[in-house]
Amino acid sequence: MTDPLILHEDPISGNCYKIRLTASLLGISLERRTYDIRNGETRSPEFLRSINANGRIPVLQIGDRFLPESNAACYWLAEGSDLIPSDRFDHAEMLRWLFFEQYSHEPNIATLRFWLAYIGKDNLDDTQLGQINSKTRSGQEALRVMDAHLVQRDWFAGTGLSIADIALFAYTHVAEEGAIFSLDDHPAICRWMARISDEPGFVPMKPGDH
Amino acid sequence: MTDPLILHEDPISGNCYKIRLTASLLGISLERRTYDIRNGETRSPEFLRSINANGRIPVLQIGDRFLPESNAACYWLAEGSDLIPSDRFDHAEMLRWLFFEQYSHEPNIATLRFWLAYIGKDNLDDTQLGQINSKTRSGQEALRVMDAHLVQRDWFAGTGLSIADIALFAYTHVAEEGAIFSLDDHPAICRWMARISDEPGFVPMKPGDH
Repeated sequence: MTDPLILHEDPISGNCYKIRLTASLLGISLERRTYDIRNGETRSPEFLRSINANGRIPVLQIGDRFLPESNAACYWLAEGSDLIPSDRFDHAEMLRWLFFEQYSHEPNIATLRFWLAYIGKDNLDDTQLGQINSKTRSGQEALRVMDAHLVQRDWFAGTGLSIADIALFAYTHVAEEGAIFSLDDHPAICRWMARISDEPGFVPMKPGDH
Repeated sequence: MTDPLILHEDPISGNCYKIRLTASLLGISLERRTYDIRNGETRSPEFLRSINANGRIPVLQIGDRFLPESNAACYWLAEGSDLIPSDRFDHAEMLRWLFFEQYSHEPNIATLRFWLAYIGKDNLDDTQLGQINSKTRSGQEALRVMDAHLVQRDWFAGTGLSIADIALFAYTHVAEEGAIFSLDDHPAICRWMARISDEPGFVPMKPGDH
């Protein structure tokens, strides 16, 4: 890899952490440029023009090319490594869990964490307040599905750690921030999180955490 | 491929259509088993136990294995074909648009179509009604991002048709059902949809349409 790699990120974002964790597990160095999403720094005309027209982070910059979407960036970093299963079905099952993460997990668990632990309930608008109950139910359902899957296996896809585990770990391990979700009833998830934390090269989301 | 392929689907679902379109473009035969999502047929104990614990369709059955998530199923079908770019960056960019489709496009454009054209506004609950405006804005933004990307290129990733185009086509081409979204202001999207319809092996979502 000769192109310099720059991660455009906000350190509070689990989506950004996925990419840092993937890089760390692979021994890849990333330069980090931080933005504050709560101050709209990813909606500036400059950001929209040169980094991501969708106004979102993370974006992985590879030389002069820009790759949005956290799970796509993890895949780019991990291609050719053991973090991507080579068997055709296992590979598709890894993708299955990456799409589950973005559709059934992140919009519920990550969004409620952001609203309640970072924005604050008093600052939410009526549209957001009206979704708390439905997002709580959907997030609990996502955790139930994950726990049931992990009862009989150590990893989400294939026979070892893959980027599906990394992607799901990012917001699951901070799911209790915001005081909506509890992992106490999901022992298989807790054991799986411990396995990930024990991986060589693991880095915590926040400095000092483990 | 020796395993029989069975698509568990609802014909009104664009997510199911993606898989049928991918298979048709590749000349692959699928057996179809249909369920009515409006009658809760994918939430039955039998479905949850044997097809998908997440209670969703589509599920692609490959022999005795089950693969949920439409975009993962498209990838499994298309692996090794021209519908998956081989260049590392182009491949990651294809994944980027697949994740964009599931995060920024489908939950807005497909959900409003389902609510307004299939469930009916009078049958929506307060949580759903409260989200119509925000989903309208987010869906319009997704169409704007797509159109801007297509102004300077024929396909979403790489140099030819990929499963990213197929995934985004599925709900874009029926986006006007429900009378919320209009494609009139997005000429690059309209030209791209015409290119897809002209592909050898193209099948419409509903019999008789084109």
